Amino acid sequence: MVKQERAMRTRNVLVRAAALQFARNGYEGTSLVQIKQEAGLSMGALTFHFKTKAELADTVEARGKFVVECALERVTEVSAPWLDLLTELTVELSRLLEKNVFVQSTARLGRERPGSPDWSTFWLPEIRRLAELAHEGGELLSPAAPGDVTALARLLVAGAETRIRDDGPAASSEAITEELTRVWRLVRPRISDPDQ
Amino acid sequence: MVKQERAMRTRNVLVRAAALQFARNGYEGTSLVQIKQEAGLSMGALTFHFKTKAELADTVEARGKFVVECALERVTEVSAPWLDLLTELTVELSRLLEKNVFVQSTARLGRERPGSPDWSTFWLPEIRRLAELAHEGGELLSPAAPGDVTALARLLVAGAETRIRDDGPAASSEAITEELTRVWRLVRPRISDPDQ
Repeated sequence: MVKQERAMRTRNVLVRAAALQFARNGYEGTSLVQIKQEAGLSMGALTFHFKTKAELADTVEARGKFVVECALERVTEVSAPWLDLLTELTVELSRLLEKNVFVQSTARLGRERPGSPDWSTFWLPEIRRLAELAHEGGELLSPAAPGDVTALARLLVAGAETRIRDDGPAASSEAITEELTRVWRLVRPRISDPDQ
Repeated sequence: MVKQERAMRTRNVLVRAAALQFARNGYEGTSLVQIKQEAGLSMGALTFHFKTKAELADTVEARGKFVVECALERVTEVSAPWLDLLTELTVELSRLLEKNVFVQSTARLGRERPGSPDWSTFWLPEIRRLAELAHEGGELLSPAAPGDVTALARLLVAGAETRIRDDGPAASSEAITEELTRVWRLVRPRISDPDQ
């Protein structure tokens, strides 16, 4: 039992080290040697748990997808207008891009590794659904078609993604997320009536 | 004279071929062999004009910067409210990302090649300037601070960049640019009074 726990912990250390390396150096730029060094483990320990770099990348992506799904769950369980949930979801995604190494690496792997899904496939359907619900619920002002609101949200998250990547890892700040929040505060009254 | 013209044409063919390869495969993923094949020229012809891949990349980037500067000039020479110019500039940048191989490659080189400037350094100061002018000219509604308008424009262009890259080259469509235009139409009345 203790042995199983130790194995699980070793596995987690390896997956986190792989995520860090993928996020920092991309899939091609990462080697198993770098990962075992980052993890502070031997190559034997690594290959005992993961046979290939691809297997590690698959595991990192599964974890990244899970983190995004948890964010969707966490944000949308709150009772609030649909458009508030949509806005908060984009902010939470930006925050994860700034803070969470699994989300960072999953987003990067999706762009760089052939066969990896674009990470937007994990959250875009939910954005679209929330925009539709906001529309059906009469939350949207007449010029704001649900498709346009989805397009706005998608461009803003993609923009935050690019800016966070360009600015490099800034573990302690949430500068881009704060910028996104200010932008939403600016444009929101155009999309929904706050007094409704 | 004819000989000089021919040399200049050969040079242009090579720079365009390099831009195409850099845009498609990135800096590391492009070799001189690929470039001379794309150009339909011999390795001798290539190395006569360019000694290294870095020299080609520098030339491509200078051309990309020039294309952006021309866009700035073209957009801002029109007599229109400052905020119209700002909006139109973001749309034009998105169009160039969809259509112009020098801009595509310059944006990509800026992200991937150490020492290459981020292409936003070519246009962000102009966005900032237009937002300030719109503010000073009384064009902005009171909640729209020039910094927030700049942040919005920057996120939207960065978002368009990511989406265009993810969707791959689509030479004939301007789908993302149209989306950006719709998004501006949606949020613009929140930023400036159209009747002013």
